[in-house]
Amino acid sequence: MSAAPSEAGQANPTYGALTTEGNSTNIAWHHSTVTRAARAHQRGHRSAILWFTGLSGAGKSTLANAVNSALFEQGLACYVLDGDNIRHGLCKDLGFSDAAREENIRRIGEVAKLFVDAGVVALTAFVSPFKADRDKVRALVPAGDFIEIHCAADLDVCEQRDTKGLYAKARAGEIKEFTGISSPYEAPEAPELRVDTGSQSLEESVAQVLAYLQGQGIIPQAE
Amino acid sequence: MSAAPSEAGQANPTYGALTTEGNSTNIAWHHSTVTRAARAHQRGHRSAILWFTGLSGAGKSTLANAVNSALFEQGLACYVLDGDNIRHGLCKDLGFSDAAREENIRRIGEVAKLFVDAGVVALTAFVSPFKADRDKVRALVPAGDFIEIHCAADLDVCEQRDTKGLYAKARAGEIKEFTGISSPYEAPEAPELRVDTGSQSLEESVAQVLAYLQGQGIIPQAE
Repeated sequence: MSAAPSEAGQANPTYGALTTEGNSTNIAWHHSTVTRAARAHQRGHRSAILWFTGLSGAGKSTLANAVNSALFEQGLACYVLDGDNIRHGLCKDLGFSDAAREENIRRIGEVAKLFVDAGVVALTAFVSPFKADRDKVRALVPAGDFIEIHCAADLDVCEQRDTKGLYAKARAGEIKEFTGISSPYEAPEAPELRVDTGSQSLEESVAQVLAYLQGQGIIPQAE
Repeated sequence: MSAAPSEAGQANPTYGALTTEGNSTNIAWHHSTVTRAARAHQRGHRSAILWFTGLSGAGKSTLANAVNSALFEQGLACYVLDGDNIRHGLCKDLGFSDAAREENIRRIGEVAKLFVDAGVVALTAFVSPFKADRDKVRALVPAGDFIEIHCAADLDVCEQRDTKGLYAKARAGEIKEFTGISSPYEAPEAPELRVDTGSQSLEESVAQVLAYLQGQGIIPQAE
């Protein structure tokens, strides 16, 4: 018997990926992949990356989790990627050098892209201080899928909050290259959304994000 | 004014992560994260990693995609991680050295873990020839969340199919360290499921996987 792919395929038609489609009776799921469009149709909403960026203490993670909860309560598919589930897992091999920070953001972007492909609204909460790194993530997905949300609390507000005690350590020189103190934060020039997390309430900020997503047709209007 | 965290928190109670919970009126989504249990309750099914392993040509990707389609048609959250969406994205910086292969599997495991946390059944389709690498992924998640599925087509069947022409190249020495030819495949000794993708039909294999998932209470019985 010949080992040519076509005959091997015919010997077991359902696994011969390239040669047997015409013979298959299982066409409903034969070689088919579930498309993003099919997922959106089934779930009743689009997916996108909501990229929250801003200084430490600006409220990125708090806002991302609050938006996530609001989406979940509407029955939408959503997930938050943040330091808690990334730095201890996927990126635990990375340090804090410039190259490591860049690679960290790259991997987060790639994972967010997978979630979007899976029909899930991916919310990310990382300082992500450099425009070039954020723009690389933007370039990974089709236009409209990357929604940059600048949590625009001023440095003095963030430092006053200092919820993790990091600013005090940075001022004391215990943390090097701390964004806003000893390393620059490149604020987005034209983000899809700028949220004043320095003065407005969390409730107002959540409403602002949800209104944007509704306006873009990503999520349905709340009932 | 003092910059102590507690006062800063009171100045803007909704963003002070560590100090203001008692004062919050937005407790419904204040600092809350959506738990995996809440997702499972809402969607009506558990999540898990379905780790398809086997030789090139054994039918891993075909079976994973077919199972994925069947789950999707039942309205369940599911997603396939495979070479198409991983090697060109998250792991595009990795080559094929032993260390790179190990890191490739590690990252896939970490991403699958994120999907499971997001309530999504994560199906992975990689040769993953080494027991140690697969066992590291198994150790990432709670017992019962890692379901190793051995696509157990014999080497001669896979080589006869040679759907991608890779065996011919490996025999000709054009591909080095090709699993089954010039590099070992360590078959799982006690996988959760062994599927005879060498002789049974794709439809039978899909039914076998679905029956296992139903038996484990991960997905509901089909209607």
